[in-house]
Amino acid sequence: MASQCRWGILGAANIARKNWKAIRLAENATLTAVASREPARAKEWIDANQAECPFPTAPAAVTYDELLKSPDVDAVYIPLPTGVRREWVVKAARAGKHVLCEKPCGPDAGELRAMLNACQANNVQFMDGVMFMHGKRLPLLRRTIDDGETVGQLRRIATQFTFAAGDDFLKNNIRVSTALEPLGALGDLGWYNLRFSLFVMKYQMPAKVSGRLLTEHQGVPLEFSGELFWDGGVSAAFYCSFNTELQQWAHVSGTKGSIAVQDFVLPYYGCEAAFVADRPVFNVQGTRYHWESHPKRFAVTEYSDGAPDAQETNMVRTFSGLVLGGTPDPTWGEIALKTQVVMDTCLASARQGGATLACPSV
Amino acid sequence: MASQCRWGILGAANIARKNWKAIRLAENATLTAVASREPARAKEWIDANQAECPFPTAPAAVTYDELLKSPDVDAVYIPLPTGVRREWVVKAARAGKHVLCEKPCGPDAGELRAMLNACQANNVQFMDGVMFMHGKRLPLLRRTIDDGETVGQLRRIATQFTFAAGDDFLKNNIRVSTALEPLGALGDLGWYNLRFSLFVMKYQMPAKVSGRLLTEHQGVPLEFSGELFWDGGVSAAFYCSFNTELQQWAHVSGTKGSIAVQDFVLPYYGCEAAFVADRPVFNVQGTRYHWESHPKRFAVTEYSDGAPDAQETNMVRTFSGLVLGGTPDPTWGEIALKTQVVMDTCLASARQGGATLACPSV
Repeated sequence: MASQCRWGILGAANIARKNWKAIRLAENATLTAVASREPARAKEWIDANQAECPFPTAPAAVTYDELLKSPDVDAVYIPLPTGVRREWVVKAARAGKHVLCEKPCGPDAGELRAMLNACQANNVQFMDGVMFMHGKRLPLLRRTIDDGETVGQLRRIATQFTFAAGDDFLKNNIRVSTALEPLGALGDLGWYNLRFSLFVMKYQMPAKVSGRLLTEHQGVPLEFSGELFWDGGVSAAFYCSFNTELQQWAHVSGTKGSIAVQDFVLPYYGCEAAFVADRPVFNVQGTRYHWESHPKRFAVTEYSDGAPDAQETNMVRTFSGLVLGGTPDPTWGEIALKTQVVMDTCLASARQGGATLACPSV
Repeated sequence: MASQCRWGILGAANIARKNWKAIRLAENATLTAVASREPARAKEWIDANQAECPFPTAPAAVTYDELLKSPDVDAVYIPLPTGVRREWVVKAARAGKHVLCEKPCGPDAGELRAMLNACQANNVQFMDGVMFMHGKRLPLLRRTIDDGETVGQLRRIATQFTFAAGDDFLKNNIRVSTALEPLGALGDLGWYNLRFSLFVMKYQMPAKVSGRLLTEHQGVPLEFSGELFWDGGVSAAFYCSFNTELQQWAHVSGTKGSIAVQDFVLPYYGCEAAFVADRPVFNVQGTRYHWESHPKRFAVTEYSDGAPDAQETNMVRTFSGLVLGGTPDPTWGEIALKTQVVMDTCLASARQGGATLACPSV
């Protein structure tokens, strides 16, 4: 059995430079090829990355088609724009390549289903590139939410993921292009809000959702809020925006206490990923009347930004392990599809002025 | 001119014990009478408080009507249930007493308007008892929001105010009585969410609102979420609940940064009231890709719970100053009415399944 999964990157995007480093740091992965529409562009990109973070052998600069035909590539990371992603995911699957797919996976669940069907038919792994799913903090968060005491019964989830994109971005960036990124901020940022909420709910689908398009640019959501409602009474509010400066917080609230995460998408620079639980105490006696905060901090050691245990390295490591293991895990495709279906339904609600819509099951 | 405003308390409620102490600590206030339906109950309540926090002369134990007729009372604090409050606010105003009114002021804006009209006709001060409005933190928060740099242009406000009431409360407490507290958690807690949001927006009314009744008990809201939409694009989400353990956070977000307040209703026990601004920095260069949190903490020295500078003492001090000054300030009644109108419209929306409703101007 091979000891390393051999990666190809389909599209020399800036965001993919982080994944280059993650592949370099994961001991069960290596990078053999990088494709761009213009191989010269791929070569330039490879050279820049090799200078900073070299592989022992530089990856080959190839075209998309060459990459998919290469016998030296087991898995592809596809950071291509959402509007053209299905074509290349399906081609990759048919070529027998495992697929790590950027988010939002598709413009809608129909396109994602086509991708998943192709992956299943060709027995290849599918995963969406949500790095926080692979952070060491998440299992600790899971245990803490589930311990019965810190939060008690869940009641409410609230998340915000925003960054202020600036005027140039809004004019020129593909992330607000009707053709290439039709979901705009909802796809780019809201994907994380929805995934985190589904994670907290152990991927139970909400019964109903609503959404509101707060700002748009030629039909592309720039600012979006929504609310999810589960059977049993838990609800989740979210807000994502390209108009609002960087925030990435989540509050998980229950009958006994709450958890606050200030950086659920990407732990802020440092050597820890943390969250804080609180169960304030009422001190009411006679004319005394105050509330005491009793915070408890939970943290894991996890170095930021290109460390061997950073969440992006773990993502590559986990994916590579699945590829080397030989048996695709369908769970990743299922939770990607759930995320996309909830997103689609929120957007459908927004197009109907915020109407409460039943959320299809997955 | 008198140097002290002479207070009466109409209703020997537990919550009023905190106000007893606040009146005791405000140098421009004293307490001359306490009324209960049963004067014996008032006497017992007075004795308990005198033992803990005595006035030089114990207040008289009287009936409601006696209190309103007393020439020794300038101002009344009315913690009576919302369902019966109008009657006593109007009677108090007609008796020439200034009125500090618990929140929610009334079951709806119509009742509050009747109270405000009575106060105006009789030239007495009206104010709702929202203590955080009088904390020393609020002016600092105002200046920080308005400095043009910390937040930039406002985009989003999010608040949560909740506490887990427990089964006994839900069975027996008047705060969930259809007759006495028909607004339930929306009135008891949501009043703060809405007031804080209006404060941030300098009391501009939202153009539209929506609301959702997440849990109810015989028609009384136990858990409620809503969203406010202003002309110009700012929006505010709120959540209040008797089912969810104590939290009282607010996030104020803009194009340049954000402010987080963890305890906007009542600063947690301690000697400071604080908030934290953050403007994270993107550090993206080559294969490096991380975000740095750059938090800045703002705080005022403000001792909790019955201190001379605590927010409840300031509330009594400010109100007493208005009474002693002789000219009622209509602003307090106006912002109470705005709060109530927004609340009414959110509830109307919830009764229509979350429909987006135009919010009446005030």
